[in-house]
Amino acid sequence: MKDAVGNEAEVGMERHLLQIIGTIRSCYKEKFGIPRQAGLTPSARAELELAGPFARPEIVRGLEEFSHLWLVFLFHEAVSEGWQWTVRPPRLGGRRRLGVFATRSPHRPNHIGLSAVRLLGIETGGGGVTLKLGGVDLLDGTPVLDVKPYLPYSDRLGEATSGWADADRAEIPVIFTPTAASCAAAYRQRTGRTLLPLIEEVLRQDPRPASQRGRRTRFAMTLWDVTIRWQVTKTCFLVDCCEWLEEREEPVSG
Amino acid sequence: MKDAVGNEAEVGMERHLLQIIGTIRSCYKEKFGIPRQAGLTPSARAELELAGPFARPEIVRGLEEFSHLWLVFLFHEAVSEGWQWTVRPPRLGGRRRLGVFATRSPHRPNHIGLSAVRLLGIETGGGGVTLKLGGVDLLDGTPVLDVKPYLPYSDRLGEATSGWADADRAEIPVIFTPTAASCAAAYRQRTGRTLLPLIEEVLRQDPRPASQRGRRTRFAMTLWDVTIRWQVTKTCFLVDCCEWLEEREEPVSG
Repeated sequence: MKDAVGNEAEVGMERHLLQIIGTIRSCYKEKFGIPRQAGLTPSARAELELAGPFARPEIVRGLEEFSHLWLVFLFHEAVSEGWQWTVRPPRLGGRRRLGVFATRSPHRPNHIGLSAVRLLGIETGGGGVTLKLGGVDLLDGTPVLDVKPYLPYSDRLGEATSGWADADRAEIPVIFTPTAASCAAAYRQRTGRTLLPLIEEVLRQDPRPASQRGRRTRFAMTLWDVTIRWQVTKTCFLVDCCEWLEEREEPVSG
Repeated sequence: MKDAVGNEAEVGMERHLLQIIGTIRSCYKEKFGIPRQAGLTPSARAELELAGPFARPEIVRGLEEFSHLWLVFLFHEAVSEGWQWTVRPPRLGGRRRLGVFATRSPHRPNHIGLSAVRLLGIETGGGGVTLKLGGVDLLDGTPVLDVKPYLPYSDRLGEATSGWADADRAEIPVIFTPTAASCAAAYRQRTGRTLLPLIEEVLRQDPRPASQRGRRTRFAMTLWDVTIRWQVTKTCFLVDCCEWLEEREEPVSG
């Protein structure tokens, strides 16, 4: 992998080689729809499967005592796109250009991401170690570099203030057509995955790129293996279609 | 650098090459005395000097709007010591053996550290970029991989709970002899560095290794270029000596 496009010729920079300790399996199969930060879509689920020499139960002993953990990961789809000194954060509608170190943009030196996620459970059967996670903002396939417990006494900063990132946007109501709602219910029955709250949480964050607001009125996104189609009305986001390829991988009896 | 002693022969592990974006200059010149986490010693000061291609003022544009930031760094002195599946956190007095991913130990795969520190200022003169930091828990010379703003809306988790890490210890009172106090005052006058609150904050965390409690009664540690000597009494830590090498690097007139 290239780590910083345009800086390959730099002389004298120290470098450090890291190992991928595991990979994320997430409901987010594409970048469109992923919230800007972790915790904004509590229903978003993922699993972290530890890899190779790290997949030993003792490496997570005691982690179950924590409700949340930090994932240090790579924005793997941004690596080939390189990094920039300045970026336009989508949360500001692309109107301000900020230094990349003043943002959480993927297009940063080293492409390291940081997310605080909920720990829902730990599975250690069959020679593997899998962490069950909630509230994730991670693309399926994300390579992970580290897992750390969230320590309230040092990580929860009561006095911390921020500038632009405090500005919360008005959330847009999300409505489902009866057809879409019953499709989501059928999907839940088949897979055990609750789709309605997840769709609602994702759309409430308004995933539309700033460039497409006011232009397009129809959008589609993928959550798990479901394609969700929705339209922008004057008052809400209307979800009118959920569809998935039946029985694609595992035939279900009954 | 070696990244995981004992795992060099592992086949098929993905690896990722990272660049050091800057180096920490800190009051902590040795590991002894450094608190377990950031924020516990608010008077601890450091500077992050951005390196090479990253030392451009625009890369931190807008960062001044944030009170705190995350540093993603390398535990560089632990790299050559490798990593372990389980460790005994010093906060638990070395009594419990936990999985390394359930701790913030330096002896972890990839040796990545994470600290939330206060941003005191940004200097961009003379072709360099330097961040002035407070409340640090970083060894002098620490290589940094990333800088991110602390975002209260996603990083300050009100509902997060932890197990053992919630257990706060009783803080031990810190007393200075008149000689030590006047030495610290003289040091402040010469260098502008406030030493008394820093020493007090560091000792209140009780930096003694669990193995030496009840055995040794005299300790020494280095903060900036000052050697601080203190003894353990029945009721307090008594700081009885601060000494430094006068005029070692820069002669001061008058």
